[in-house]
Amino acid sequence: MDKLVQLSYALDTFYFLMSGALVMWMAAGFAMLESGLVRAKNTTEILTKNIALFAIACVMYLLVGYGIMYPDAAVNSVWPGVGFLIGPEHTVEEVMNSDGKTYYAKLADFFFQVVFVATAMSIVSGAVAERMKLWSFLTFAVVMTGFIYPLQGFWKWGGGFLDEMGFLDFAGSGVVHMTGASAALAGVMLLGPRRGKYGENGAINPIPGCNMPMATLGTFILWMGWFGFNGGSELKISDIGEANSVAMVFVNTNMAAAGGLIAALMTAHFLFGKADLSMILNGALAGLVAITAEPLTPAPLLAVIIGAVGGVLVVFAILFMDKLKIDDPVGAISVHGVVGIWGVIAVCLSNPDAKFLVQLTGIVTIFGFVFIASLITWFVIKSMIGIRVSEEDEYNGVDFSECGMEAYPEFTAEGSKR
Amino acid sequence: MDKLVQLSYALDTFYFLMSGALVMWMAAGFAMLESGLVRAKNTTEILTKNIALFAIACVMYLLVGYGIMYPDAAVNSVWPGVGFLIGPEHTVEEVMNSDGKTYYAKLADFFFQVVFVATAMSIVSGAVAERMKLWSFLTFAVVMTGFIYPLQGFWKWGGGFLDEMGFLDFAGSGVVHMTGASAALAGVMLLGPRRGKYGENGAINPIPGCNMPMATLGTFILWMGWFGFNGGSELKISDIGEANSVAMVFVNTNMAAAGGLIAALMTAHFLFGKADLSMILNGALAGLVAITAEPLTPAPLLAVIIGAVGGVLVVFAILFMDKLKIDDPVGAISVHGVVGIWGVIAVCLSNPDAKFLVQLTGIVTIFGFVFIASLITWFVIKSMIGIRVSEEDEYNGVDFSECGMEAYPEFTAEGSKR
Amino acid sequence: MDKLVQLSYALDTFYFLMSGALVMWMAAGFAMLESGLVRAKNTTEILTKNIALFAIACVMYLLVGYGIMYPDAAVNSVWPGVGFLIGPEHTVEEVMNSDGKTYYAKLADFFFQVVFVATAMSIVSGAVAERMKLWSFLTFAVVMTGFIYPLQGFWKWGGGFLDEMGFLDFAGSGVVHMTGASAALAGVMLLGPRRGKYGENGAINPIPGCNMPMATLGTFILWMGWFGFNGGSELKISDIGEANSVAMVFVNTNMAAAGGLIAALMTAHFLFGKADLSMILNGALAGLVAITAEPLTPAPLLAVIIGAVGGVLVVFAILFMDKLKIDDPVGAISVHGVVGIWGVIAVCLSNPDAKFLVQLTGIVTIFGFVFIASLITWFVIKSMIGIRVSEEDEYNGVDFSECGMEAYPEFTAEGSKR
Repeated sequence: MDKLVQLSYALDTFYFLMSGALVMWMAAGFAMLESGLVRAKNTTEILTKNIALFAIACVMYLLVGYGIMYPDAAVNSVWPGVGFLIGPEHTVEEVMNSDGKTYYAKLADFFFQVVFVATAMSIVSGAVAERMKLWSFLTFAVVMTGFIYPLQGFWKWGGGFLDEMGFLDFAGSGVVHMTGASAALAGVMLLGPRRGKYGENGAINPIPGCNMPMATLGTFILWMGWFGFNGGSELKISDIGEANSVAMVFVNTNMAAAGGLIAALMTAHFLFGKADLSMILNGALAGLVAITAEPLTPAPLLAVIIGAVGGVLVVFAILFMDKLKIDDPVGAISVHGVVGIWGVIAVCLSNPDAKFLVQLTGIVTIFGFVFIASLITWFVIKSMIGIRVSEEDEYNGVDFSECGMEAYPEFTAEGSKR
Repeated sequence: MDKLVQLSYALDTFYFLMSGALVMWMAAGFAMLESGLVRAKNTTEILTKNIALFAIACVMYLLVGYGIMYPDAAVNSVWPGVGFLIGPEHTVEEVMNSDGKTYYAKLADFFFQVVFVATAMSIVSGAVAERMKLWSFLTFAVVMTGFIYPLQGFWKWGGGFLDEMGFLDFAGSGVVHMTGASAALAGVMLLGPRRGKYGENGAINPIPGCNMPMATLGTFILWMGWFGFNGGSELKISDIGEANSVAMVFVNTNMAAAGGLIAALMTAHFLFGKADLSMILNGALAGLVAITAEPLTPAPLLAVIIGAVGGVLVVFAILFMDKLKIDDPVGAISVHGVVGIWGVIAVCLSNPDAKFLVQLTGIVTIFGFVFIASLITWFVIKSMIGIRVSEEDEYNGVDFSECGMEAYPEFTAEGSKR
Repeated sequence: MDKLVQLSYALDTFYFLMSGALVMWMAAGFAMLESGLVRAKNTTEILTKNIALFAIACVMYLLVGYGIMYPDAAVNSVWPGVGFLIGPEHTVEEVMNSDGKTYYAKLADFFFQVVFVATAMSIVSGAVAERMKLWSFLTFAVVMTGFIYPLQGFWKWGGGFLDEMGFLDFAGSGVVHMTGASAALAGVMLLGPRRGKYGENGAINPIPGCNMPMATLGTFILWMGWFGFNGGSELKISDIGEANSVAMVFVNTNMAAAGGLIAALMTAHFLFGKADLSMILNGALAGLVAITAEPLTPAPLLAVIIGAVGGVLVVFAILFMDKLKIDDPVGAISVHGVVGIWGVIAVCLSNPDAKFLVQLTGIVTIFGFVFIASLITWFVIKSMIGIRVSEEDEYNGVDFSECGMEAYPEFTAEGSKR
């Protein structure tokens, strides 16, 4: 019997670690997606932001974030609420006496959580692309991953008041995606649109991305990584019921992405008469975001529909943001924010435990807190070191001014300087 | 004992889901491979086709395909043979009373199967690249993934007549790869070659791919994903014998790819005096296709040889297709069709249960049915909405006419319009 | 009880196979990293080298390498020390009577080992990029993966004298990474720097990479794959203690990469005033190499520091190599060699069993043997077929002379010929 418990612990830990590795992979997905959707002259800098924010998220979450979000897990650390030792691992005895409650390695949990933080932060980088100072962004990443994300995360996943109220958010349509989008929105509002994006008389100038294969690759990576993101959020796989649940989550995650993609393809076709690839990619991501708050209870066909609603929503949201002159080069606020809200609400369609008003309270709380906390943080950073590059640097591309290096030195002559 | 069965069920389900995630990843591999091997002006469209067909495959297989291919699994669905609810999951009691026959989640099986359909369809997109109308292709995808693939798949994997005859095809050299290639061949024959590919007096003009790193990345992705494709097709891992088998499948899959690559490298060297990277990549893929029908019974060295024969074959097949003026921009018909046939035959080299005539019957049946069914489908589509873009759109690139978007707007000036 | 042992065997085998698949994926990481850091005109060739060396490594290790490195495992093969059949798999009886010592499939071990060999060889390709003959490189790959790597690998991991002395190298900072770097250094010294790299009066001309998104993607792939590289090297996961250890290895691997990245970012900022992306990527890789010799015993914060020291080291090492006119286009010797040494030494910081002098002996032995054996091999190849392309071929790019194919035929006009 003892050995069976040990083996079960091992399987759940392994399942957690593999899921975490897939979520880590999503960082590459965001980096590729965003590098494909910006112009060549701003590519090195967006890559730098994406990979650096992942590292910063890992270190900040180790130092303070995990302790804030899961205060119970971080006992035995050097200072209260700070988990850089995370405490000793579960002993065999502890597991045996836990009555099945302690069933995976503490560090596997940490690993799974730490890669989630980076996801939330990755959402921000795309929205503020092509005009924000690198170091201002990285400074924001420190605050966001160390404090803002963990605090709101504690309210739901750490057992805080949203959890006690009965707010439901399986893998984080709200806790992760809307959080990232709220922080992004605050940043974009302080930052303003890119030079030349909005002309006179309400003209909206499209600024096409420079590398669509990269953007597509990024979407595929995110789609794959999402199996870890949602699949791992079941938190357990080691019995028949749990294994069935994880399988359901995989299927629904995939189906929602498919539904979102097809819906965005059709919507773009009817609106523009073209199969707009960037909309299609955002449609798939919207499907994924939409199902994230509840990938377990819908039947697969309902998952397709939940995703499809996300896919329609995202196209209109992107167009609407431009009307509001909220310049989001990759559509991150629409994908993760607008559709994140839809995801949180959509829980009510299939989960009988969901209460509409509580879901709404969750949305308002998370958006309100993250938006205001981010706005203050961005504002402080702006006052101290500024957040926007100079007009000349923006014209020449931030790659040169921030990174001293072109992304494609041989492919772009004067082409990138437009 | 009960808990042991449950844990075993969990491990097999998890193994299935991870394998499925790897196969899903192959969709990204095809997208990258094909986007690297076409010209810049047709890149956005090939990306759109690849990611959209994946979504269509998922939805069609949910709605009808799975029910056709596995009629027994889809009981309890709303209309007979249609599995969009797939029926309730296995209960604990059901598993316990199954005497080991029910050992993984129904939805894990669905997930693993659904990503296979997309693989078959992905093969088609490369062969018809650079000249087919987007919506005609997507219409074909609906028929292929909902009806043609599932019906022939039922004959072998659903327990149909090919299975009863003793036809052997472990992971689908025939059922998946040759199927895709047969559908592609029918499409290419109706579609005709690209403008300028075949000159007068039998001249064959090479049309180089625009992005070899992408093509190489795609090959690596496919190679990796194939561990799930073949490795997962053992269908069980939870005892010593099964675990040994899965390990053997991994090793042989890898070895055949290596053999195919080296053989294509040598063949290209002797024929052209150069290490032709596109042939080398196709060699690795040929090795993978060749071993797919039987990755379990060969010793690893035999797997190298089976792969190597595939690698030699593919080079000659690609050259031969050009002689026949069958214009297949990425070599998909050669890799998946010609070598798929070789794979089905090669089962006889190591599996004592294989009967040559039965294997041949399988080849003829699958090819015959899929080719004719596809030809009819393509023909109907051609009659109704046409399948080929206008000469002008082909000259300017289908990216603009079909997607309204260039893939690399800053890298290509007039370069892409040749 | 029997069934429990079987299930445990299955889990450990599966864990090994998934880890191996992740390590295989690192081959794609090296290919993308190197293709991003060379010039466009040498890209097809570096891709060819990377994917071909993987295939060669697999075949050579099967034919001879595995037998040399693990002579005990290769019994029953056709000729002593040659493992192409690897012997029959473990029987159920054998496992049951092994008292827990035989707990995973023989072929899973082979699969995990064979992908490691390719890693060591991948390190070489970057350092000799842009000027070495393709076939000379591939010939070296045959010797390296069949003989040089396996022999030194035997000394530690096969139970040879370094192991008996108490040399500690968990996943191969020395056995894999420094080995690759030592072979690379020997090659670079015989090969000489690229034309135009070092000017008169000690001028060092930067030669920027042509595709930074690819280089970044490669780094992300390597980062992800390293979870298999280090995580799989625990060799077992099926009880509480082992599962905890694997979780610790995942966390520390991730943390060291993060530490290395941040340290390189800061170092580059202070030295150059810019966030040099190529340095940042090398910083992350340096963190990974640094932790590889001991990812189990450090606390996560110490892992950050071990990685960070690697990240600082690598920046200075790259600058120093240029002073010595050792031209390493991708910084591989610095990342894997200099930081590999640091990794082996850093074991002493957290593992009480480590003895500084023994670690030093390991470094000297591995470096000495691999460097000299490689130097001789390179020298013989140079004498027989030459190792450097002609000046004209180097000027025009090795893609044309070696592969007959441009990597980006539409993106580069005369731009790539500089």
